[in-house]
Amino acid sequence: MDLKEVIESVENELKILKLGDLNKECDILNDKIMKRTVTRGNIFVYGAGRSGFVGKSFAMRLVQLGFKAYMVGESATPPMKKDDLFIVISGSGKTQIVKDIIEISNRNLVKIVMISAEKVDDEKIYMNIIIGGKSKTSEDKKILPLGSHFEINALIFLDSLIFKLIKAYNLEERVEKITQMYREDRIPVI
Amino acid sequence: MDLKEVIESVENELKILKLGDLNKECDILNDKIMKRTVTRGNIFVYGAGRSGFVGKSFAMRLVQLGFKAYMVGESATPPMKKDDLFIVISGSGKTQIVKDIIEISNRNLVKIVMISAEKVDDEKIYMNIIIGGKSKTSEDKKILPLGSHFEINALIFLDSLIFKLIKAYNLEERVEKITQMYREDRIPVI
Amino acid sequence: MDLKEVIESVENELKILKLGDLNKECDILNDKIMKRTVTRGNIFVYGAGRSGFVGKSFAMRLVQLGFKAYMVGESATPPMKKDDLFIVISGSGKTQIVKDIIEISNRNLVKIVMISAEKVDDEKIYMNIIIGGKSKTSEDKKILPLGSHFEINALIFLDSLIFKLIKAYNLEERVEKITQMYREDRIPVI
Amino acid sequence: MDLKEVIESVENELKILKLGDLNKECDILNDKIMKRTVTRGNIFVYGAGRSGFVGKSFAMRLVQLGFKAYMVGESATPPMKKDDLFIVISGSGKTQIVKDIIEISNRNLVKIVMISAEKVDDEKIYMNIIIGGKSKTSEDKKILPLGSHFEINALIFLDSLIFKLIKAYNLEERVEKITQMYREDRIPVI
Repeated sequence: MDLKEVIESVENELKILKLGDLNKECDILNDKIMKRTVTRGNIFVYGAGRSGFVGKSFAMRLVQLGFKAYMVGESATPPMKKDDLFIVISGSGKTQIVKDIIEISNRNLVKIVMISAEKVDDEKIYMNIIIGGKSKTSEDKKILPLGSHFEINALIFLDSLIFKLIKAYNLEERVEKITQMYREDRIPVI
Repeated sequence: MDLKEVIESVENELKILKLGDLNKECDILNDKIMKRTVTRGNIFVYGAGRSGFVGKSFAMRLVQLGFKAYMVGESATPPMKKDDLFIVISGSGKTQIVKDIIEISNRNLVKIVMISAEKVDDEKIYMNIIIGGKSKTSEDKKILPLGSHFEINALIFLDSLIFKLIKAYNLEERVEKITQMYREDRIPVI
Repeated sequence: MDLKEVIESVENELKILKLGDLNKECDILNDKIMKRTVTRGNIFVYGAGRSGFVGKSFAMRLVQLGFKAYMVGESATPPMKKDDLFIVISGSGKTQIVKDIIEISNRNLVKIVMISAEKVDDEKIYMNIIIGGKSKTSEDKKILPLGSHFEINALIFLDSLIFKLIKAYNLEERVEKITQMYREDRIPVI
Repeated sequence: MDLKEVIESVENELKILKLGDLNKECDILNDKIMKRTVTRGNIFVYGAGRSGFVGKSFAMRLVQLGFKAYMVGESATPPMKKDDLFIVISGSGKTQIVKDIIEISNRNLVKIVMISAEKVDDEKIYMNIIIGGKSKTSEDKKILPLGSHFEINALIFLDSLIFKLIKAYNLEERVEKITQMYREDRIPVI
């Protein structure tokens, strides 16, 4: 199997993201993100392992757009408070650590949004966005191993969400400013 | 613009990955990775910012397959030595920090593979794999902001490379073992 | 040599921190940190390797006290702007990466405070606090290898600074609140 | 209270490390670390938050000395296997996430060494080294807030352990080699 066929299998998994329902949920989540700028609420992001790297990529873009976003587990993440938004990225939503992070965060009465491969049943979750792919532990047979299809779907979904956020709230100028800073090598990214 | 159209723009950028040349380069890189198991060489990975999160996702899969792979900048990364393989992920390949890391690593006579959006001219680079998308600082107009298209292409290219590595060297049993460990929640991933 | 003697050698290196000059510099730095709450400036922290782990420990405490502090290199770190405070922890202050981070940050006209083992000559540095120990590359013979004495001195100096910050600006209530959150296991620290 | 008095309070907490019992436990742990080079076992390190930064500082030194050490939570950490050594750094040893990590790791039959401020009762723990200071959630009144005294004690204890490891197994040449690499700026530390 050559590279072309593998990429096609990735595209096949992306089909779910093109459905109208996800478009609507994306807008709803963007609305919740935007609302925190009014309520002075923070946005927290968490994922374990590779889902966490996707989460960090997402948090970075939110911060670049000027939002107060933080990654759970980083040194400079403040405590959570009531009505903050907490976006969890997890294929199955069911591993012990993910369940405990949700439990601990929920004690602060944050609003928990779960982005997962399949439906996650947990009354602590306020909104569950299902983006397909495949969780690490699913019996489903897919081309890529472990949770790769989910992680790719998550990165593309969240980057698309960022695009829609920019358009919906006219953040183009802010993007241009950051782009300019990168061109002048003024952001100490390591 | 709804989610569907954004995903299509992502797919449009993925076209370059389906070309025969990249398939060949992917096989060559896999061969170099595999060779390190014979020479007892290490594989190092580096990227700055979001390219770094893609790099960590890649390093994680290599380690799960049993390779001696390490991420530059993590606490448990050993010193480099002659003929180790060093895979750098960078849209432009030109920011100051990326150039420094290449300079410093090159003093150890490692073989440097650069995965970038555009061609990178640097005689220290042993192999340059161009995967398109768009670097953060390019003037190119693309749908997603900054280097997102490059980062998505990089994640998908490297995950596809992992798939081909599994097939070419019959690592299915190893994948099955790791999957089983995840199912039994025996991997302390945070 | 038993543990007792090694600890005594550590204490011997700590003597420099007890001198009156450092006490004064500590107060000056605390004043600069506090001032950012008025000017709405951010505090950035950076260190490479083990100095970076000390830096993260420091940034975590600043955030817990309610300051807007960020670690360079983490996903959720915003861009720097004029008059922000940038605290760099580096034994020698002279490695290529540290010099480049200073160069890049300086383009944003931030105020750079360097905490180092020895004096660092660099006109980009606004304030240099010398805390002894020993840099990784110094010829000095000390008991602990590499830069360990510097890193220990840095952690203790910065934790003492935090103590003095709490006292000088009456932040005890805030500390009590965070302690209580830890007791109730409400902070998702991983 | 000036800096001098704060440093003295830190030194006061260090007294426990000078006792003969800890010297003996330090030698026993070093023996276990060394033994893994014979059994081809890995050494895993974990801590949450600031204890984690101490853990990373420790893992980095172990790797520099040539040991196969890994930090739980980093991208390039391999799966655990029977009889690997797992060193956990935690003031109280009792937060939900720390208990989870121990539970999950224990399923792999690793030997768990807990380094804590107070005694931790858990039959999954193979060896408990008590180094004083104060856990974040303890009612004890100490000068520094939260778990700072424990974290400082942990860093100094583990750095002293590294010193004794070098002496006991004649690793001076290895230290000299790494020092030389730092002098030549050949280690890409960020």
